Amino acid sequence: MLKPGATIGILGGGQLGRMLSVAASRMGLKCHIYEPGAGAPAGHVAERVFTAPYEDEACLRAFAAGVDVITYEFENIPTSALDLLESLRPIRPGRRALAISQDRILEKSFLNEIGLTTAPWAQVDDAATLEAALAQIGAPSILKTTRLGYDGKGQARIMSEADAPEALAAMGGAAAVLEGFVNFSAEISVIAARGLDGAVACYDPGENVHKSGILHTTTVPARISPNLRSDAVLIAARILNALDYVGVLGVELFVTPEGLIVNEIAPRVHNSGHWTQAGCAVDQFEQHIRAIAGWPLGDGGRYADVEMLNLIGDDVDRVPEFAKAKNTQIHLYGKADAKPGRKMGHVNRVL
Amino acid sequence: MLKPGATIGILGGGQLGRMLSVAASRMGLKCHIYEPGAGAPAGHVAERVFTAPYEDEACLRAFAAGVDVITYEFENIPTSALDLLESLRPIRPGRRALAISQDRILEKSFLNEIGLTTAPWAQVDDAATLEAALAQIGAPSILKTTRLGYDGKGQARIMSEADAPEALAAMGGAAAVLEGFVNFSAEISVIAARGLDGAVACYDPGENVHKSGILHTTTVPARISPNLRSDAVLIAARILNALDYVGVLGVELFVTPEGLIVNEIAPRVHNSGHWTQAGCAVDQFEQHIRAIAGWPLGDGGRYADVEMLNLIGDDVDRVPEFAKAKNTQIHLYGKADAKPGRKMGHVNRVL
Repeated sequence: MLKPGATIGILGGGQLGRMLSVAASRMGLKCHIYEPGAGAPAGHVAERVFTAPYEDEACLRAFAAGVDVITYEFENIPTSALDLLESLRPIRPGRRALAISQDRILEKSFLNEIGLTTAPWAQVDDAATLEAALAQIGAPSILKTTRLGYDGKGQARIMSEADAPEALAAMGGAAAVLEGFVNFSAEISVIAARGLDGAVACYDPGENVHKSGILHTTTVPARISPNLRSDAVLIAARILNALDYVGVLGVELFVTPEGLIVNEIAPRVHNSGHWTQAGCAVDQFEQHIRAIAGWPLGDGGRYADVEMLNLIGDDVDRVPEFAKAKNTQIHLYGKADAKPGRKMGHVNRVL
Repeated sequence: MLKPGATIGILGGGQLGRMLSVAASRMGLKCHIYEPGAGAPAGHVAERVFTAPYEDEACLRAFAAGVDVITYEFENIPTSALDLLESLRPIRPGRRALAISQDRILEKSFLNEIGLTTAPWAQVDDAATLEAALAQIGAPSILKTTRLGYDGKGQARIMSEADAPEALAAMGGAAAVLEGFVNFSAEISVIAARGLDGAVACYDPGENVHKSGILHTTTVPARISPNLRSDAVLIAARILNALDYVGVLGVELFVTPEGLIVNEIAPRVHNSGHWTQAGCAVDQFEQHIRAIAGWPLGDGGRYADVEMLNLIGDDVDRVPEFAKAKNTQIHLYGKADAKPGRKMGHVNRVL
């Protein structure tokens, strides 16, 4: 159990790192941020920021030397940086979870291997494998790069076979995976945590609505049956245990007539868990810090109904309105420019 | 209304500054801390820390140059520093509230002038005025230095006239005030806020229990009648308006058979308001930042019952136990040594 005064290193300086650092402060812990980009939002609320590329070995070493444990707020960190850091300090969650979540094919294979259902999928490397995949899965379906995709980027819909060449071109030569469309009535997500001692705790599943491929709202409780609620929690626990995971993990699930289908997993705190800041004594950020710091997991029991609304791009202009609203908690990320599609903040409304 | 990216200067780098800086981050605002002592807890979650005495004019100027507005987390800031800073940037809350709260006699005079009841009191400068004061107020009573007192320091009880010389000696020659004992059934406090636009908002009063002169627990709701609850809120509002106040103010009140008596006011966020972190969408720290940043006051409506417990000195050894407790939120301040009487953290338990 890391003692007050210990320091956590966070790879990535965006809003998730920012909120992790704030949560760490509640445990009496300090945070150092490693972020290639200047003006990292997490740097405003951290003891120290290292601004350097992931290829800067000397800076990586200096960063590691000042911290007791390393975690990350996004999964696309170069392997060489992780190899170096791992030789110096523990990285939590571990490398396997990272490797799996960096590659859609590894992820889907892993999920299927542990008995979980995913959308039908097939690997696509070129026109021939795409044709074979389409023959197997059919259209409509969706072609995605296996790596570096998020928030709807690196994806192309295939409504009929005629769309295949354009979709393949959109992958830019990268390895891809064809996923069958899933006929789902809702998307939910479970934010789950596993401690260093192997204890597992899950937050109440939230119901997600996306807009233009980006999460728009998460509402708790999700409108699902008690059966599905426990299925969702059991799925998350199976993933955590199979990965010998330490930290918080987000699991996105589709609700279908045949039960729950795993959409994807994220080995980190997750946008769909931001509601926990308003509805739980211990939020997802603190739960993650507790896990990686060897603390007992906290009580994430929900004591309020909450709707989380993302502020994307110029949604942030609505802040003066939200600032006056009842039971409304604003979280801005300290980003300078409200570019289209950029996550500028979120709002938790206690219902 | 300060825009995201603007910077708030906080005088004092203790736990209140720390939690103010965290709250400011939620508004997209950055904080710079000015603190004479090294290793300031607020520095762990701020963009910048200035470590220098309040007499360092050059450093005060550099601090002011980097911020848009200045606030403070404790009231005993040297006047010369405030004079210089005020010539450079707005200080909120204003100087009058500070002057009043720095001096018990000014404070009591002000409260009486605006029609509020305090304990009977008399100024004491020497043995003769103490004798006269005792003749007027009687024993038991309590002698307090007029300035620089907090958490039970600079105080001496007088149970009978025979205690007078020792009590006077305990003042160390400083100006003092004799206060009559108040026969109270409970102490409550109101955390109240006033915006730059003059709007007033109060949190639900909390009930305080002290131990060895230091706040031990605050519980909401306080066990008082609806009448007293509105009296408490009206008292706080009267103080805020009379001071043309901007920010959060803590008002400690005694519940007596004759109604509420004002014990003291603190022109800042207050230990007895820490429960708002668990029970309200907008906590006292954010409310203060909103006020001084010219934002609308937020909704401080309470949606949970909460008990706040201070962790004083080696109470902090109980953290592993609290870490496992139901509905329990830990806030540690990142202080290195658990000296007796030192506030190391607090725990909010949702009831």
